[in-house]
Amino acid sequence: MPLLIDVRKLSLITELIQDGAEEVAGSLASLAGVEACVEIKSLSFVQPGDIPTEMGTGQIHSARIRLTEPPYGVFLMTFSTETAAEIARLMTGTPVEGEFTQMQQSALQEMCNILTSGFIDGIADTLETTIDMGTPTVEVADTSAVADAALSHVRRDSLTIVLDSLVDIKETDVAFSLRIFLIPDPGSFVHLIDQLDRDVETGEPTNVADTEVEELDMSADVSAFEDSAGR
Amino acid sequence: MPLLIDVRKLSLITELIQDGAEEVAGSLASLAGVEACVEIKSLSFVQPGDIPTEMGTGQIHSARIRLTEPPYGVFLMTFSTETAAEIARLMTGTPVEGEFTQMQQSALQEMCNILTSGFIDGIADTLETTIDMGTPTVEVADTSAVADAALSHVRRDSLTIVLDSLVDIKETDVAFSLRIFLIPDPGSFVHLIDQLDRDVETGEPTNVADTEVEELDMSADVSAFEDSAGR
Repeated sequence: MPLLIDVRKLSLITELIQDGAEEVAGSLASLAGVEACVEIKSLSFVQPGDIPTEMGTGQIHSARIRLTEPPYGVFLMTFSTETAAEIARLMTGTPVEGEFTQMQQSALQEMCNILTSGFIDGIADTLETTIDMGTPTVEVADTSAVADAALSHVRRDSLTIVLDSLVDIKETDVAFSLRIFLIPDPGSFVHLIDQLDRDVETGEPTNVADTEVEELDMSADVSAFEDSAGR
Repeated sequence: MPLLIDVRKLSLITELIQDGAEEVAGSLASLAGVEACVEIKSLSFVQPGDIPTEMGTGQIHSARIRLTEPPYGVFLMTFSTETAAEIARLMTGTPVEGEFTQMQQSALQEMCNILTSGFIDGIADTLETTIDMGTPTVEVADTSAVADAALSHVRRDSLTIVLDSLVDIKETDVAFSLRIFLIPDPGSFVHLIDQLDRDVETGEPTNVADTEVEELDMSADVSAFEDSAGR
């Protein structure tokens, strides 16, 4: 099955990612009371088989969730032990000394929930849909185990979007480096992108263009009215 | 005309860009005697109409060239006045005081030639082709003028690949931030990507897989020979 996407629509992927990042910042403010700026540092595409290489070796924290609605596939977020400790300290106000306390572990889970749902909601908004989702599985494990768990239900020929992002918490010197792997079902992803009603000639979403035309028509009506009124 | 690309081949774009960056590092070493590491900081896709926004306002240095062979289109590299002065200083050994000297201007042109041809050659290698090119036009101008000049022959519905890269010169504290806009003809670009003989099921270029099979056969032959010789 060919899984074809109009090359001129690739800019929609950049928009998707940026909208996801913005929604994460919004969720952090409303759900965690944390003012943050979320910056996408890099975007790349890899094959699912390359994910272990991208992760490197050693212990890594991860939050993963399988999407049960389009674009299906897997959302996987990874971050270092240092970042996990910073998140726990930020959320609980207590520094991490050795093992995480029960409260710090809960705080980490909560932050992963906020980041994950924020990102997925942001993408869903742009795709003009909703993507219901449960709670992500948060764990610390060897990178190879994390990759295996995430990829167990993924087609080997899928597209993987890799994002490095920086969540910069305002008025502090805290910044989290997060890596996100988005591995949608390729067919479903292409279908969603195709649905987006963008006019590829002008780059404008067609509904925006319609609004503009309507506005122009209205101002023409107004000036016709003004003309007929002798102004 | 639909300009369709297999979504599973998008990882080839990441590879193209990385190969371009590696070739730039190689060209710097062989042509300028400068050991450097070239890092891609970000990759994104925009519409050509968004390029002026990406550039911001004010004066900017640029090197641009129209490609007269596939994938056609425009290669545009931009960098700040500070970066231009650092390049001139690195290449001539003399600091820039106010206006560039004739020698510094030549050095800047030479560096732009090396960076541009290195990047284009790297892309061409991956695309298993060659892309002949002339000398890029190097100038300093307002961002809007630079964008206008670059986009004058570009289809408005093209794809624009935007890269932020960092050229880190080894054994110095010098690092150039460069932004690259690659605006290929979309039809030609899709055709080149399609030509690449990658096996989308395994993610391996098919010719590599063939070689591996052959090597296995050969070693089997060798051990059969050794067995029959009683070793």
